[in-house]
Amino acid sequence: MKVDRAKKYFNCSNSERAAFEAGIKLGTVYHQFVGTPLSLENVDALERAIEASLKVQPFVIDAKVKIDRRRIKKKSGFYKYLTLSGDMLDVDLLVQYEDKIAVCKLEYIKDMDYPLMYIKEIRGV
Amino acid sequence: MKVDRAKKYFNCSNSERAAFEAGIKLGTVYHQFVGTPLSLENVDALERAIEASLKVQPFVIDAKVKIDRRRIKKKSGFYKYLTLSGDMLDVDLLVQYEDKIAVCKLEYIKDMDYPLMYIKEIRGV
Amino acid sequence: MKVDRAKKYFNCSNSERAAFEAGIKLGTVYHQFVGTPLSLENVDALERAIEASLKVQPFVIDAKVKIDRRRIKKKSGFYKYLTLSGDMLDVDLLVQYEDKIAVCKLEYIKDMDYPLMYIKEIRGV
Amino acid sequence: MKVDRAKKYFNCSNSERAAFEAGIKLGTVYHQFVGTPLSLENVDALERAIEASLKVQPFVIDAKVKIDRRRIKKKSGFYKYLTLSGDMLDVDLLVQYEDKIAVCKLEYIKDMDYPLMYIKEIRGV
Repeated sequence: MKVDRAKKYFNCSNSERAAFEAGIKLGTVYHQFVGTPLSLENVDALERAIEASLKVQPFVIDAKVKIDRRRIKKKSGFYKYLTLSGDMLDVDLLVQYEDKIAVCKLEYIKDMDYPLMYIKEIRGV
Repeated sequence: MKVDRAKKYFNCSNSERAAFEAGIKLGTVYHQFVGTPLSLENVDALERAIEASLKVQPFVIDAKVKIDRRRIKKKSGFYKYLTLSGDMLDVDLLVQYEDKIAVCKLEYIKDMDYPLMYIKEIRGV
Repeated sequence: MKVDRAKKYFNCSNSERAAFEAGIKLGTVYHQFVGTPLSLENVDALERAIEASLKVQPFVIDAKVKIDRRRIKKKSGFYKYLTLSGDMLDVDLLVQYEDKIAVCKLEYIKDMDYPLMYIKEIRGV
Repeated sequence: MKVDRAKKYFNCSNSERAAFEAGIKLGTVYHQFVGTPLSLENVDALERAIEASLKVQPFVIDAKVKIDRRRIKKKSGFYKYLTLSGDMLDVDLLVQYEDKIAVCKLEYIKDMDYPLMYIKEIRGV
């Protein structure tokens, strides 16, 4: 069984901890990968890499990453690629801390013009 | 008075929201700035920029960033600089969501060999 | 006098080396800082930090960084900030390798819809 | 046939252009991906994504990326992963601009304690 060696540093409930850990991971996705060169040829590899980079982090029990292919413009010539921006990302994330699961999402919200990270639900295991 | 236009997307308590928002900001610091070229000449400017980038984000009410100068090696010649790594960072962060404040920290924990982000306390305003 | 300890690894002319070193620095600006949270309140600090991070790198003799303030939308409420994108950046860079200077620029080119990095001139010292 | 729409902005030789373009790509690898969460479970996916992100960029004709698995420590528990650092990277890159090919590399040089990007050769097609 895995032990949380960081536990003694925290002073909060399990559901607050789950929410905090989920926030870290969503901040990581955005700020690590936004700016990555992107075209239809490498979008699959990038989705897999982002997903895999989420799954190795503490307390992540599931992650699904989609990059909006309609946003990848069809240019021609040498400068046909673009770079990943936050509004192309759609991320579903499940984080479990002990008996609590935070169900979270990152998605572009049109009427806010903002790639929002939010908590859909925190529930018991 | 500022309105939280994202509120309807969340399904959690104010303290869970404060914890989540704090997690996002600490994940952002790490994954945005780790790798930045660094020497004794630009360390002040970088600290100020990281601090300022925290303060423009939603619900952040205070932030303090220190980069460990003892870790900046004194090399000579053209290749005398290094790049920012997570274990040099010491960040104090206060996030307020409505009536709750999350007091959080990012610091290198020696016996874990890990730059830990944690919640020191969640308290009422 | 500073010595280039990396010299033996290179097999090229001084002007090719100057061009290569300049390319590295412009790639660094873009991919390190794109995605940074940005508003009118931290734009000055971010410009200074990017400029300073350029100047600590090998062979950079001058650098000037401007972020287009007209692109920083005036939103209100908590979600009023945005994140740095490549098309806001205007960077002037001078790199000297021995007797050659590369005068380079990163700027958004409208009719290419692309933040282009280019060599304006390579000249003798 | 692809046309270089950026050509008119450049004032340099084909070999200087090849060197410059190669520098951009190596700067991109480092500053985009350093900091990515990493363990033995996602190292393959990350190598593929970095390689693919190089190949979509202008003038890249080949790229090979290896991450040093010996540097990935075997920890246990929740905090068993680490983050990608520049000294784990080994990148081979071929950039062609018209009749010139720049053969470049990024690798950790022990006696400089530095992840060096260098030009092995610039040759005709």
